[in-house]
Amino acid sequence: MSFAKSIHRALASLGAFQMSRRTSGKQVRYLIVGLGITTTASISFVQMEAAKKRKFNSSLCMADPITNKSKLMENEEDMRTRMELMIMKVQADFCHALEAEEYGGQKFKVDRWLRAEGGGGITCVLQDGEVFEKAGVNISVVTGMLPPGAVQQMRTRGKKLEDGKKLPFYAAGVSAVIHPRNPNVPTIHFNYRYFELESDNEKQWWFGGGTDLTPYYLNENDAVHFHKTLKDACDEYDTTYYPRFKKWCDDYFRITHRKESRGIGGIFFDDLDTPNQEEVFKFVASCANSVIPSYLPLVRQHKNDNYGDKERQWQLLRRGRYVEFNLIYDRGTKFGLYTPGARYESILMSLPLTARWEYMHTVPANSRESKLLEVLQNPRDWVAKA
Amino acid sequence: MSFAKSIHRALASLGAFQMSRRTSGKQVRYLIVGLGITTTASISFVQMEAAKKRKFNSSLCMADPITNKSKLMENEEDMRTRMELMIMKVQADFCHALEAEEYGGQKFKVDRWLRAEGGGGITCVLQDGEVFEKAGVNISVVTGMLPPGAVQQMRTRGKKLEDGKKLPFYAAGVSAVIHPRNPNVPTIHFNYRYFELESDNEKQWWFGGGTDLTPYYLNENDAVHFHKTLKDACDEYDTTYYPRFKKWCDDYFRITHRKESRGIGGIFFDDLDTPNQEEVFKFVASCANSVIPSYLPLVRQHKNDNYGDKERQWQLLRRGRYVEFNLIYDRGTKFGLYTPGARYESILMSLPLTARWEYMHTVPANSRESKLLEVLQNPRDWVAKA
Repeated sequence: MSFAKSIHRALASLGAFQMSRRTSGKQVRYLIVGLGITTTASISFVQMEAAKKRKFNSSLCMADPITNKSKLMENEEDMRTRMELMIMKVQADFCHALEAEEYGGQKFKVDRWLRAEGGGGITCVLQDGEVFEKAGVNISVVTGMLPPGAVQQMRTRGKKLEDGKKLPFYAAGVSAVIHPRNPNVPTIHFNYRYFELESDNEKQWWFGGGTDLTPYYLNENDAVHFHKTLKDACDEYDTTYYPRFKKWCDDYFRITHRKESRGIGGIFFDDLDTPNQEEVFKFVASCANSVIPSYLPLVRQHKNDNYGDKERQWQLLRRGRYVEFNLIYDRGTKFGLYTPGARYESILMSLPLTARWEYMHTVPANSRESKLLEVLQNPRDWVAKA
Repeated sequence: MSFAKSIHRALASLGAFQMSRRTSGKQVRYLIVGLGITTTASISFVQMEAAKKRKFNSSLCMADPITNKSKLMENEEDMRTRMELMIMKVQADFCHALEAEEYGGQKFKVDRWLRAEGGGGITCVLQDGEVFEKAGVNISVVTGMLPPGAVQQMRTRGKKLEDGKKLPFYAAGVSAVIHPRNPNVPTIHFNYRYFELESDNEKQWWFGGGTDLTPYYLNENDAVHFHKTLKDACDEYDTTYYPRFKKWCDDYFRITHRKESRGIGGIFFDDLDTPNQEEVFKFVASCANSVIPSYLPLVRQHKNDNYGDKERQWQLLRRGRYVEFNLIYDRGTKFGLYTPGARYESILMSLPLTARWEYMHTVPANSRESKLLEVLQNPRDWVAKA
């Protein structure tokens, strides 16, 4: 019975399984017709049969999972499985939501790739759309040996790990960067990940992630809506999360040499392993599921706003700053690019289609551009602390 | 007499002093007229007087020197003075040579800046020209205390330095990056620098530098001309220099994650302190003076070549790669940006006005684009070893 329950939960929570249910439903009906068994009686029997026979059906996802489907089925209670299925669903939901905003039917290009060293990913990119100039949504599920240098970095973050040794790791995550064409629509970035590391024959695990917004022009209502949505996703689990993770985000996405933030922040956290795995997973899933409600209303509201060349040029300059942050400071990008055999196309899909650098660019006082710069220089609280 | 000789040498070798000579020449004539002394007799006396009174005249340079002029005059045999005057002349010559290629009279914008911590620089940028989309030529003359982290980095390069201490340093250098508008004209970068560091009350010094070319389309004659000019500048001092420094350049300007070089190389060296200071200075000056003959013929030959949107888009993509190298790998950029109080506008003037990133961009087989990629993936020897 607990097996049936777990199937039901999977069916309910994972889009990936819904098609699977439908398919087995069809098989069930054929079976019923062929055997002439009464419908009511046969349901539970056939459900059991179907459950045993069913295969992972990824037709609602962007591609087949990275992990072997039967392995996923056999370990459906395992956090690795749950995480992989969760990020596949987040990826698919987000890609479909973005595609629905395009007018010309532009679709994501899907690349499923495998790593010689273990694992792989699904990279989805929509480039040169009418609404989205470049949108990248990536998942990766990777196993391998973490080199001593990376282990050392983790030790400086306070992890108790064997020194000077390669350690076996597992990482699964979803990440996305969306650069819209209209300068009145902000860029969004999010990333949610699960990490396992084995040291002294003991498994350590933690979650990390965040969502943050990079507007080209400041719209205070949008900023409040965005932060409020993230705060709600956090508050459900721990009311200390939002204030802590909001500050962490402001501190992290800082273009130090320019003394300004990349955008107006959001939430950011790492090394989260309390109160327990189940709770953290649910919290992370809640954050990941808050991306669409936090962002899509902004796209819908502004994708047809008027703008001219002045606004476009400003957007390109701000995209130059985005590139600066990602290539100089972002830990994920650096970690990724320095990893031998890294799929750099997936890592660098975060870069905008076009960026610009002008020497000594200045903005007129009291302009819309200067209002943005002001909040980038002095991050603001967008949601009342109440 | 050695003082007069040194003046003559300064007059001959440094454009910066020529105006000074003219000015004092005028004063001399007034003096002669006023005192009624015979010309022949008066010359040496007046030369002496003028020499004592003369001031540094920077009207042929882009701006006043960073070091106090009277201090320069008092220490004209000192390597610091000679280096500062040499890089000022290189900067001015190069800027004027580039300005002469523009059709609309576009000129470099000159910013002379001082650092609170000691020293400063002169940044010259020509942006949005007809021939040059963005050209930056920078000199800096900087003193301060090198933080222990940077000292540690130098120790890993084999320098014998006190550990865990801040050390007083002096650095003077010229650097330039020229991004032309026409994709048939390559981008050039060069940098020549002199460094002094005090440890255990002993002064260490060394020179470093290099010149390298980044074409958007490969022209083999241009590549040979460029490398041959650098080789000639090297061979005059040591015939082992060019092959060593050519390889060093290929190794350094490597975009590791893409397994390709930034361009077709040139020369690159660091920590050069043999056979003696005088010889190394002359060698470095010879390299710096070979920039114009190595590059200007390429500009003149191709600045009016036909090109279309396809070539422009390819140029922008390659500029994206240039940004990747500079922000991820370049030691100078990283060292600069991590230095507190760094003038980031001068450091980042190397970035192109516009750059582009396309996901999974590929080039047709046997195209002009693929021919460039081939030499970027497999650096070639451009000059017969003879």
